[in-house]
Amino acid sequence: MQFNLNLSSDMLRRTPAALASLLESTAEAWARGTEGPETFSPFDVVGHLIDGEETDWIPRARIILARGKEPRFEPYDRFRHRARNADRSLSSLLAEFARLRAANLELLRSWRLTGAELDLAGIHPSLGRVTLRQLLAAWVVHDLGHLAQVARVMAKQYREQVGPWVPYLPVLTDHDVPRS
Amino acid sequence: MQFNLNLSSDMLRRTPAALASLLESTAEAWARGTEGPETFSPFDVVGHLIDGEETDWIPRARIILARGKEPRFEPYDRFRHRARNADRSLSSLLAEFARLRAANLELLRSWRLTGAELDLAGIHPSLGRVTLRQLLAAWVVHDLGHLAQVARVMAKQYREQVGPWVPYLPVLTDHDVPRS
Repeated sequence: MQFNLNLSSDMLRRTPAALASLLESTAEAWARGTEGPETFSPFDVVGHLIDGEETDWIPRARIILARGKEPRFEPYDRFRHRARNADRSLSSLLAEFARLRAANLELLRSWRLTGAELDLAGIHPSLGRVTLRQLLAAWVVHDLGHLAQVARVMAKQYREQVGPWVPYLPVLTDHDVPRS
Repeated sequence: MQFNLNLSSDMLRRTPAALASLLESTAEAWARGTEGPETFSPFDVVGHLIDGEETDWIPRARIILARGKEPRFEPYDRFRHRARNADRSLSSLLAEFARLRAANLELLRSWRLTGAELDLAGIHPSLGRVTLRQLLAAWVVHDLGHLAQVARVMAKQYREQVGPWVPYLPVLTDHDVPRS
């Protein structure tokens, strides 16, 4: 599949509703369950996605589009959300994520990016040179990866309840060692 | 997390909306992409979930609740959907799944299952004795596993587009060998 800006925006638009359909008013055990120490709960994932809206994807696109001499990205803090959201409800985070995402997509649309602009590059702190096209594709994949994570982490909360079904339900044994 | 009938029903109720938010009117490349030969596309997953509504979870619950001498489940055909849905649109499958699921949850609710009924067992063709409680928990986990699969399979369609980001996006290398 080739990169397509409209399809990428369309997919990014879907994520808040997909998360809300799974998580709005769900039980605490599902919202706060994890896959083990130092892994994200669904609550953490929504916070992490908010961090992405505020500090990662669009800020990095701006750095690229500014066409400076040294378009180096700020390092990204994967745990910013922990302190930020300590007293927040999941419902308020879902609403905030939807709001931030809609505004960022509106901004992205307003840029009317050309193919030449999508070819511009920035410098990732550890990955090196990445193009704006790759950044936007990574934003889409990052969303989908965290959606898969939310479903997987929720599934695992019921691992002890399915009895002999475990080998037929591979989601229960995916990421037995944390991968993200 | 303990098994909870109301929470299980609540989660099962969410799946059609979660799938629709990701898949309604999405591009063919995302709807029909797979992880390789003999793996499911998102289109296939919706068909497989419809098969589950028609031939798996509720029919098996009925066999258990009938309290017969030999409550043996029919084997489940994982590929029934292929011929069944050859000429269908994804949109019509999403609507059909939502309709079937709502009817099955209404039926489940109407049974007003007691703890003693949830302890009743049936005989799975390969797993042996399983309780109604385990069957209902497996239904929930099966949904979440296939939701995770849909997100993962969609993510993988963009694998070539993210450039050097692959190692930071583990969803792209999950299930490199098919697990389901």
